[in-house]
Amino acid sequence: MDQTSTLVKHIVEAWTQLQTEQPLVQCITNSVAANYAANVLLAAGASPAMIDNPFEAESFTTISAALSINLGTPTHEQMQAMQISAQTAQRTNTPWVLDPVGYGPVLKWRSDMVDELLQYNPTVIRGNASEISTLAGNQVLSKGVDSTLNSADVYNQAKVLLAHAECIAISGESDFILSKELDAVIQINGGSYLQPKVTATGCALGALIAAYCAVTTPTIATIAAHTHFAIAGKLAFKKAQRMGQFNVAFMDYVHSLNPDLIQQYADIKILEI
Amino acid sequence: MDQTSTLVKHIVEAWTQLQTEQPLVQCITNSVAANYAANVLLAAGASPAMIDNPFEAESFTTISAALSINLGTPTHEQMQAMQISAQTAQRTNTPWVLDPVGYGPVLKWRSDMVDELLQYNPTVIRGNASEISTLAGNQVLSKGVDSTLNSADVYNQAKVLLAHAECIAISGESDFILSKELDAVIQINGGSYLQPKVTATGCALGALIAAYCAVTTPTIATIAAHTHFAIAGKLAFKKAQRMGQFNVAFMDYVHSLNPDLIQQYADIKILEI
Amino acid sequence: MDQTSTLVKHIVEAWTQLQTEQPLVQCITNSVAANYAANVLLAAGASPAMIDNPFEAESFTTISAALSINLGTPTHEQMQAMQISAQTAQRTNTPWVLDPVGYGPVLKWRSDMVDELLQYNPTVIRGNASEISTLAGNQVLSKGVDSTLNSADVYNQAKVLLAHAECIAISGESDFILSKELDAVIQINGGSYLQPKVTATGCALGALIAAYCAVTTPTIATIAAHTHFAIAGKLAFKKAQRMGQFNVAFMDYVHSLNPDLIQQYADIKILEI
Repeated sequence: MDQTSTLVKHIVEAWTQLQTEQPLVQCITNSVAANYAANVLLAAGASPAMIDNPFEAESFTTISAALSINLGTPTHEQMQAMQISAQTAQRTNTPWVLDPVGYGPVLKWRSDMVDELLQYNPTVIRGNASEISTLAGNQVLSKGVDSTLNSADVYNQAKVLLAHAECIAISGESDFILSKELDAVIQINGGSYLQPKVTATGCALGALIAAYCAVTTPTIATIAAHTHFAIAGKLAFKKAQRMGQFNVAFMDYVHSLNPDLIQQYADIKILEI
Repeated sequence: MDQTSTLVKHIVEAWTQLQTEQPLVQCITNSVAANYAANVLLAAGASPAMIDNPFEAESFTTISAALSINLGTPTHEQMQAMQISAQTAQRTNTPWVLDPVGYGPVLKWRSDMVDELLQYNPTVIRGNASEISTLAGNQVLSKGVDSTLNSADVYNQAKVLLAHAECIAISGESDFILSKELDAVIQINGGSYLQPKVTATGCALGALIAAYCAVTTPTIATIAAHTHFAIAGKLAFKKAQRMGQFNVAFMDYVHSLNPDLIQQYADIKILEI
Repeated sequence: MDQTSTLVKHIVEAWTQLQTEQPLVQCITNSVAANYAANVLLAAGASPAMIDNPFEAESFTTISAALSINLGTPTHEQMQAMQISAQTAQRTNTPWVLDPVGYGPVLKWRSDMVDELLQYNPTVIRGNASEISTLAGNQVLSKGVDSTLNSADVYNQAKVLLAHAECIAISGESDFILSKELDAVIQINGGSYLQPKVTATGCALGALIAAYCAVTTPTIATIAAHTHFAIAGKLAFKKAQRMGQFNVAFMDYVHSLNPDLIQQYADIKILEI
């Protein structure tokens, strides 16, 4: 069995485990993604809870199987909750995902918070090419919260971020995942050009990575979540090319993914770092 | 006419009244449910307004026909609004529904607020089996905001809560409604196993109970709202078995319910307490 | 070429320009509309970002091509962000749209803020008939956030508001747009009676006006956004008469509008003021 087939086998196992365990995933996320990310997690097999206040953050992270922190539309109370939950996750060895939405000099308040959250060692950092490149220390002209760079051009820059996390995931036309464990970059193809046209798909992907982290290693979790989305996006686009129907079809396939579809459609390449 | 047929007749009347009056329903709800609950109320015939700040809470509750309070993702400002609006509702005899999302020792901040809100005598308390059981004084291992108990096993425990409210509603595979007025438990069947897979359906149901409370008695309102959802869920599942399409079909049937469908599909049993 | 044909030609040009420029639009909006407005902007061709905290408001407005401010469910932090962003937009000549949701004596906190925001000269003010009439100084019995008046009865009252903005837009069964530039009222027909049944369509329309303002004059932008929605609503209703499917079809047509559809379905009348 070659390395790619082994990865696909692990993805199938992770998906199966997700259905069995239905892990509780705490999401501190933005107002755009809250409903969508919760539905994606439920469709994929996990149990989401959007607990994002500082007064319940510590006790809730303690009972959660994983945590997802997304800085899309932060409030003061959410910011406090993020710090408490990230710290608690580190202390209790709960896997957690950091999604530094809009990281860069224009959005300084959240970017300072992201810098601070790095000390709690996120299990996975995921973002688009602009965010990851800027977080890796490069100067990037971003356009709001959407990327101006290609994921393929950025993954080499992202290596330095492996000092903070087990995996770095860069989403784009192809997704690239840097894995400390494998000492490699995994390229995942699939999806469709319509996917970034549906708001909060990236945010929901971060939450899904967290869900998978509750049932497998960070590397397999990150690859599995991206593959889950890439297949759903590809199949949805076959069925519908307009945004309303594409969105419905995408949720259908996030829900109806299964081992056969994973084996048939997973499109993964292992690259050297 | 037997008791069940009489109830169905009252549900039809309540539904008709809802279309006629289109009552204004104030919802203080969570970030996951805000859009969904508003669409459910509009589809069902009511007029929703998500006014959830403490500075407008009193004046808005005063002009509202009903109030729905949901503690899914509370903020400090929302908590203040909840207190003010609940107090105002009690003072002005405006019916109001309390949905104690996640009630239990892990989520203490909201649970303390729920305890406090009980003094303003909610018209209806609705929740899943774990929440209602815990609120009734039992020790329950909950899993985030989803239930770990069956609704059928809990309704006997819920009797004590009738000290605070006219009706207690427990949603689950079957729904159980304890009515002070009828001195009985009403069991409502329908829906589908996919319904809890769509996030915020419980929260939206709480808002719909409030809407019906604006046009009929608390008991009929609670039964009517649950029947509305049970029929829509059953018919939607006939049409679509995947989450994206199910969600669309569910909203279609919430919208297109009518007296014929109610008479044909209402599945109600009256149990002794 | 008559005046109406000229307008349609300008709408086509504006739509084309929107696809080319994909302008960054900052939205400070409510919890009900956040996801929906973002999807509408993406479907229509723009690039939305829901930056609504006071700490990043100034720097983000500075790089945005347009700004949309909506007072649906304001928080303290959002209110501060609104002031900062409106002031920044005025200073940097960035077009911005004000949507005074629920304006009136019952909702005083937001209404005071709307009065204050007027000093920063919004490019466009849009609302339903009740909101615009009240903002124009009339006493109106509103029902929550929905209108109790007809748009056709109100546009004469709205003239006084042209002291504050380039355009005043009143949505309803027909939409009416007062233009300072044209010294005329533009009536736009289309849509469907189901459109107000989908929550946040008005809020999303405000955001879409802002998007068009980034690529054309305030008058053309306001007419183009209303026409975009009127056509999508009309075509969606042809395809689906229930709320769930209508909502999906509406998003499909917001996404797939094109010059041919604009020329075929635009229904615009120019009235004297």
